[in-house]
Amino acid sequence: MTTSNNGTGDVDPAVRAELARLRDSIDNIDAAVVHMLAERFKCTQQVGHLKAAHQLPPADPAREAHQIARLRRLAENAKLDPAFAEKLLNFIIAEVIRHHESIADNKNSDNKNSDNKNSDNKNSVQQQQSQP
Amino acid sequence: MTTSNNGTGDVDPAVRAELARLRDSIDNIDAAVVHMLAERFKCTQQVGHLKAAHQLPPADPAREAHQIARLRRLAENAKLDPAFAEKLLNFIIAEVIRHHESIADNKNSDNKNSDNKNSDNKNSVQQQQSQP
Repeated sequence: MTTSNNGTGDVDPAVRAELARLRDSIDNIDAAVVHMLAERFKCTQQVGHLKAAHQLPPADPAREAHQIARLRRLAENAKLDPAFAEKLLNFIIAEVIRHHESIADNKNSDNKNSDNKNSDNKNSVQQQQSQP
Repeated sequence: MTTSNNGTGDVDPAVRAELARLRDSIDNIDAAVVHMLAERFKCTQQVGHLKAAHQLPPADPAREAHQIARLRRLAENAKLDPAFAEKLLNFIIAEVIRHHESIADNKNSDNKNSDNKNSDNKNSVQQQQSQP
């Protein structure tokens, strides 16, 4: 392979082909990661509903510390920068906690609405009862 | 399942079991993602060396725009928040560009060292030649 890039995209065809080969692999991996993360969010969504239903806090620092330590070990074995793996997990966990909080908020506002409806019903019953 | 959490970790055993089941799946998915990303960085590392060897710029905005549009479509089909998929890809790409820059920097300093060595060799040859 010879170098023939003039900085305006005029790249040696062999270099271009090798770049395309690598980028195809990167695109395949990205598709796999997106689908794994879609599955992960299905799990954390269920965790969020479970936590909201049982008044568990959205964040769980002990669980997160355990996850981070484990992922750093896995990353090291796979020759991935453990600091990057930790940053990435923190990034994903922050998103998950936002989801959990929004599930809990929705649940609280549903409860309030249902309380209001109950009290509306009571008022309506009282009104009906007070009517002749 | 009944709610019996007093906020200090005293959780109904059935809830705890369901949480453990979901967390096992999350841990399996995280291990898969770490290994996929290790493989992804092996590819981008090769891209980095290719770019450095052929004086291609570390970042490629057209390629990145294409990746983001594609991943948003994939995310949508997989019912993953496309905005989250985009943020995640940007996070990974930022790390990759840092790697590319450091590969390019190392290559430049290797070249300088090798230039210095060549000039050292020339000096040494000149010294030898000037010696009797």
